[in-house]
Amino acid sequence: MAGQKSNTIVLVSGGLDSAVCLAAICASDPEDCKIFPVFFYYGQRNAKECFYADAVVQHYRDLHRNVQELKYIHIRNLFRQLVVSSSITNPSLPLEKKKDVALPNTFVPGRNIIFLACMASYAEEVGADRICIGVNSVSTPGYPDCRAEFIFKMGLAITAGTSFPKKISTPVGHMSKAETIKLGLKLNAPLKFTWSCHDNGKLPCGKCDSCESRMEAFEELGLPDPAL
Amino acid sequence: MAGQKSNTIVLVSGGLDSAVCLAAICASDPEDCKIFPVFFYYGQRNAKECFYADAVVQHYRDLHRNVQELKYIHIRNLFRQLVVSSSITNPSLPLEKKKDVALPNTFVPGRNIIFLACMASYAEEVGADRICIGVNSVSTPGYPDCRAEFIFKMGLAITAGTSFPKKISTPVGHMSKAETIKLGLKLNAPLKFTWSCHDNGKLPCGKCDSCESRMEAFEELGLPDPAL
Repeated sequence: MAGQKSNTIVLVSGGLDSAVCLAAICASDPEDCKIFPVFFYYGQRNAKECFYADAVVQHYRDLHRNVQELKYIHIRNLFRQLVVSSSITNPSLPLEKKKDVALPNTFVPGRNIIFLACMASYAEEVGADRICIGVNSVSTPGYPDCRAEFIFKMGLAITAGTSFPKKISTPVGHMSKAETIKLGLKLNAPLKFTWSCHDNGKLPCGKCDSCESRMEAFEELGLPDPAL
Repeated sequence: MAGQKSNTIVLVSGGLDSAVCLAAICASDPEDCKIFPVFFYYGQRNAKECFYADAVVQHYRDLHRNVQELKYIHIRNLFRQLVVSSSITNPSLPLEKKKDVALPNTFVPGRNIIFLACMASYAEEVGADRICIGVNSVSTPGYPDCRAEFIFKMGLAITAGTSFPKKISTPVGHMSKAETIKLGLKLNAPLKFTWSCHDNGKLPCGKCDSCESRMEAFEELGLPDPAL
């Protein structure tokens, strides 16, 4: 797509990775390219992440005239129909940790497949040829739908199954959490408006895999977390 | 999967193709393989197809002890959030025909991508390594998500993005509608319990692409349609 005008659907989850993705897209895209941020309300345990997604998108809407309003996609009951084994969609389960099991129950089977499928459908509708997702195979605990191999193959499937080619972009796919934060700081991404905790407390729990990965990254950089 | 035990998720839409797929799976599977039929209630114009799906599944549950109860997956509002341009999810639009346009508005962008993504998630949950869908590239009017190339690539993406390999099976993928009917008759599939019309009338409209394709196939075989 180099040199070509792309409209982009961007998954904004309220987390750090997707905030940096939106920052990267806004920084690199020409002003006449439209950016369509989407948030999935999928019955997640940490539903408060929607407020963070909204804050990040508002920040960029104030700066970049072609960032569209955040689109909330409500599939609250879908995962409850499909999956009962994940602690993210079934809050009665304890949050497992990667040090204890090969694939912790914070994995939601099919989540990114379904998200990308919905984004492909929406991309088709609004004429977007790029789909951006903040997956990261470095710091996530072995989730198969965060791996580069999956993203590559899903991109081929989406292009084959829709009426015009679409590219999946993963701006932080090859980065460690510390590198992602460094990129975010360089781009002035509003990292204070991000929520990484798997739980929904007033403050981040500081114990789940996602909190730990974030804390370790800020420690590695010798920086305070602007969200705390 | 030859010679290996497979549990299968089967999309049963209420139409002819998926009824023949379920018949084929029931005929070929060993009795100890579980079959999980699913129906998507996605806000479709022809929502009465759910009764036909139910009837077909009940028929096979009476015959085959490992056919599980039909699982209704409710995503009624999802396509209304994503797509407004399809006459299947937006009944205020007229049903376009393949003789008039390259890609008629009966195409629902992303439908099979989303369906297969949901089936992959459910397969992961119930331990199914096969996902069966009655797509057909011969008689559908150019829908990109019915082509063999898409199905092949989506299968690779699903296997890469989930925790164990899954195969997508398309028992009627290479068949004309007449060949599908012939196979259904050979397998004693209850074709009387199928609904193909894109509309939701008391009787099939007889005018839409789907009605025409079905009528032409029965005419080609010189047989009456058992559903009429």
